[in-house]
Amino acid sequence: MPLSSYRQFDAALTFAAESVERTMDRLLPLDQSGGGNSGEARVVEAMRYSSLGGGKRLRAFFVLASATLFKVGKLPALRTASAIEFVHAYSLIHDDLPAMDDDDLRRGKPSCHKQFDEATAILAGDALQALAFEVLAHEDTHGDPAVRVALVGELARASGAHGMVGGQMLDLLAEQRARDGGEPLAIGAITRLQRLKTGALISFSCTAGAILGKASDHLRAALAAYAHDLGLAFQMIDDLLDVEGSAAELGKTPGKDAAAGKATFVSILGVERARAQAGLLARQAAAHLEPFGSAADLLKQAANFVVARRT
Amino acid sequence: MPLSSYRQFDAALTFAAESVERTMDRLLPLDQSGGGNSGEARVVEAMRYSSLGGGKRLRAFFVLASATLFKVGKLPALRTASAIEFVHAYSLIHDDLPAMDDDDLRRGKPSCHKQFDEATAILAGDALQALAFEVLAHEDTHGDPAVRVALVGELARASGAHGMVGGQMLDLLAEQRARDGGEPLAIGAITRLQRLKTGALISFSCTAGAILGKASDHLRAALAAYAHDLGLAFQMIDDLLDVEGSAAELGKTPGKDAAAGKATFVSILGVERARAQAGLLARQAAAHLEPFGSAADLLKQAANFVVARRT
Repeated sequence: MPLSSYRQFDAALTFAAESVERTMDRLLPLDQSGGGNSGEARVVEAMRYSSLGGGKRLRAFFVLASATLFKVGKLPALRTASAIEFVHAYSLIHDDLPAMDDDDLRRGKPSCHKQFDEATAILAGDALQALAFEVLAHEDTHGDPAVRVALVGELARASGAHGMVGGQMLDLLAEQRARDGGEPLAIGAITRLQRLKTGALISFSCTAGAILGKASDHLRAALAAYAHDLGLAFQMIDDLLDVEGSAAELGKTPGKDAAAGKATFVSILGVERARAQAGLLARQAAAHLEPFGSAADLLKQAANFVVARRT
Repeated sequence: MPLSSYRQFDAALTFAAESVERTMDRLLPLDQSGGGNSGEARVVEAMRYSSLGGGKRLRAFFVLASATLFKVGKLPALRTASAIEFVHAYSLIHDDLPAMDDDDLRRGKPSCHKQFDEATAILAGDALQALAFEVLAHEDTHGDPAVRVALVGELARASGAHGMVGGQMLDLLAEQRARDGGEPLAIGAITRLQRLKTGALISFSCTAGAILGKASDHLRAALAAYAHDLGLAFQMIDDLLDVEGSAAELGKTPGKDAAAGKATFVSILGVERARAQAGLLARQAAAHLEPFGSAADLLKQAANFVVARRT
């Protein structure tokens, strides 16, 4: 049953998560060379540990849901979604390292460097990034090489120095500044940080379907606008959960931002205003999808989910 | 003056190094956003620190020299060479990290995490990898998207879990085994380690010109065979230099392999046999280039250089 036949977001998200999990599992098979004891086998084991078996797979959902708007085939959408989830997983592995956010817990399990070691975690992240591009470049991802290479270019931009990596650097600098007793970031700087750190990859997830479906610039722009507002709402709720959530619910360590003295949407706006602002952004995000009519109902529901979620 | 007009390898290598340096400099401009004080600016600064201004640029030379065999344009060859050098630079940054080879010196300068910090070094490496794929995916790299996406796929494979990253993992595991007093690697395992760790990227460098020039499988295979033997010779000399070289000559810390009790080509074969074997492989590498006649003279000279080099 295709994603487009789902009417309820919860069921559709579960379907997307299960489908992309199966695809990722196939794209990253256990390495049997060297009796399972070689360097490749160890890297692959760590890559699988950190990319399979968990996560909401919201980015995958955005790819699949945007792909259904343009009647994109199942395999191209699932492979593209897998590539994005591989990049997301690599970023979490590296972010959790002691030199970065130093987090021992991820998705309710020991983070990669705790389960293996730091060197393995660094290498597993590096190889997951390479795998993402290898998957996108493969002819199974789309029959038209121009589409595949567009996906590669967009993902590279979204995840590099002027996207996700730049945002993580900005986040670390802000933390350091807070430790040194400097001025906390203002709301504009936090918004920019979010746009880079999580927004760029979410934007790519929401527009990937349009690239796969060779959509008009007009429709692609509508999805980009949706992603922009939704990404911001997503981060505001993340900040709220960091204040209000428990480790058991979140599967990661809460309260880290406050402990680090970091400026967040919540520390600046307060809990109530941040929640209200996130709700407003979610409604605004859904409004950008008008050109698609009821075909975009799942994406509109996703905007509600993003602000209502507890984890 | 194009590379093909050079008759002497030394001059051609210098020309290649200078040309690719200029291209890399343009592809990675200083980030002026946030008054040079933003996260992006810091990542870009570290990326430039570790990728510009040094290195033999042997991989770039292989791309340019193989590209001249197929009359590939200057810009496509230089952009492809830059992408490979960005990947090479990222791998050196991550390999130097304390959790990996823990090296304070690289190309005669403090390594990236010494000059900046570990977090910045991890992120700069991550962003250099993304940049490499962004460069290859851009239309300036080749007019035919099928060629661009083939380059992306091959580079991703060469640098991932079943290429460079897998080789580095294998190397770390071998070191750990040596520390734990286990059996050192046998010659077959060392050869496999080398084929992954340095061989895969050298192979891609030597065959990139064939991909850019849409060469026949026959000619591409000849270049791959050349790269295979040359890569092995290259690593044998690297091992010899680690025994015989000085830090001033090498620009990195020598004697690390022996100190770590690591099995290398030299520890198994001895200095004399390793040197003889490298010479044999270099001659064999050059012989694979017969189909190209005198057009491949520079690549044949490169094989000699690889075994005669002192750094």
